[in-house]
Amino acid sequence: MLRVVKIGGHVIDSPELLHEFLTGFSRIEGPKILVHGGGKDATRMAEQLGIENKIIEGRRITDAAMLEVVIQSFTKLNINIVSQLQGFGTSAIGLSGADFDCIRAKKRNHPEIDYGFVGDIVNVNFEGIQSLLHLGMTPVFCALTHDGNGQLLNTNADTIASSIAQYSTLATELIYCFEKGGVLKNENDEKSVMDTVSLQSYKKYLDTGIIHGGMKPKLDNAFDALNKGVLQVRITHYSSLLGGTQVQL
Amino acid sequence: MLRVVKIGGHVIDSPELLHEFLTGFSRIEGPKILVHGGGKDATRMAEQLGIENKIIEGRRITDAAMLEVVIQSFTKLNINIVSQLQGFGTSAIGLSGADFDCIRAKKRNHPEIDYGFVGDIVNVNFEGIQSLLHLGMTPVFCALTHDGNGQLLNTNADTIASSIAQYSTLATELIYCFEKGGVLKNENDEKSVMDTVSLQSYKKYLDTGIIHGGMKPKLDNAFDALNKGVLQVRITHYSSLLGGTQVQL
Repeated sequence: MLRVVKIGGHVIDSPELLHEFLTGFSRIEGPKILVHGGGKDATRMAEQLGIENKIIEGRRITDAAMLEVVIQSFTKLNINIVSQLQGFGTSAIGLSGADFDCIRAKKRNHPEIDYGFVGDIVNVNFEGIQSLLHLGMTPVFCALTHDGNGQLLNTNADTIASSIAQYSTLATELIYCFEKGGVLKNENDEKSVMDTVSLQSYKKYLDTGIIHGGMKPKLDNAFDALNKGVLQVRITHYSSLLGGTQVQL
Repeated sequence: MLRVVKIGGHVIDSPELLHEFLTGFSRIEGPKILVHGGGKDATRMAEQLGIENKIIEGRRITDAAMLEVVIQSFTKLNINIVSQLQGFGTSAIGLSGADFDCIRAKKRNHPEIDYGFVGDIVNVNFEGIQSLLHLGMTPVFCALTHDGNGQLLNTNADTIASSIAQYSTLATELIYCFEKGGVLKNENDEKSVMDTVSLQSYKKYLDTGIIHGGMKPKLDNAFDALNKGVLQVRITHYSSLLGGTQVQL
């Protein structure tokens, strides 16, 4: 079983939490891929450099100056994760979508909003990624893709993880990790982790408001992946990679 | 023939010159590896962030703050080179020494000067690099190595190129590119490029002052590589990769 693990948010903003997560990740046996988001470092770096953070309708606009900041921030985090994993004995290799054209994207063309240098994935070269897995390497992706003509593009890390899992020709599990134990029945009770969420129960939980906010796009992504042939999807705590909530059709 | 090409200095500081160099590099047939230095971007970035540039006896001291800047600058340049090469149809893959533990170094331990996070190479995993070449990929190295315990280290790009060539088990040519046509007989005449420099003539040119300054360490590196089994070494202009001056024992 190939495991594609996405880590983001609070965990990558904290060196201690990230270290704990990477310790666990390095212990997963079998082929695995890590995808990481950017965290708050890009925002902090933009502030330091006096670059304005443009948010339209909750979405960050990646203009040329912000793309440069995002590239610096993501690649720095990527190389730091790779060198830490080496310390844990995992033969990591840091990648962006530009490496051996492994994730090709198209600059988003929205009728009303100019998102700037944001890319929507059009192809994943899974054969190339699989070649690295065969060599015993563990690919570590940052959230950057390219258009094939020399332009790098900012791409959502959840989507990158889901796309890699969807293009995979191996039996694949997609694992979204964050600071909660999984999908909670009661958001005020960290211990109320559901073992499973089915599509049917998801619809019910949406109606009753048990599932709302940031969990909705995560689960939409999860069901999308299952519909497109990903074998298993799990939403879990960064320190318990094989626990948490299993998402089922 | 495997070609290991080092590019640095003025060329990587100019997007136009870099573009011209990469066009030529992408046209080299057969297996090839690119190693790039950092240029002036790290210095500029440090100034912007108010980080002091410490130079002792002509050598930059890489303290923790400067290492962070160097990492950001080198990895940003690396990913930009990779995405540009993709645009030229070269299946580039960006690497540092931490990727699959391909270049292991030791933090420099100097009796008098604390160079900070500077690494001296102790091993090159050429087998791993060769696996990527077999997949049709073109490795692009930035000047960062690691100690195997999670610490990244700043390492001279000329030395990285020379070390990869020395550890290579293939017939290998090492090519140092810069803004001159090769080794000049007369530094005021850009056309006075020597076809060859032998060890014997080198000693003569040193005595008469024809070779001096920055060319001396470059040639010392070149003869060192030849002594350690590298088949050919060339010093040439960034737009004429298979021309310039051939260095011979």
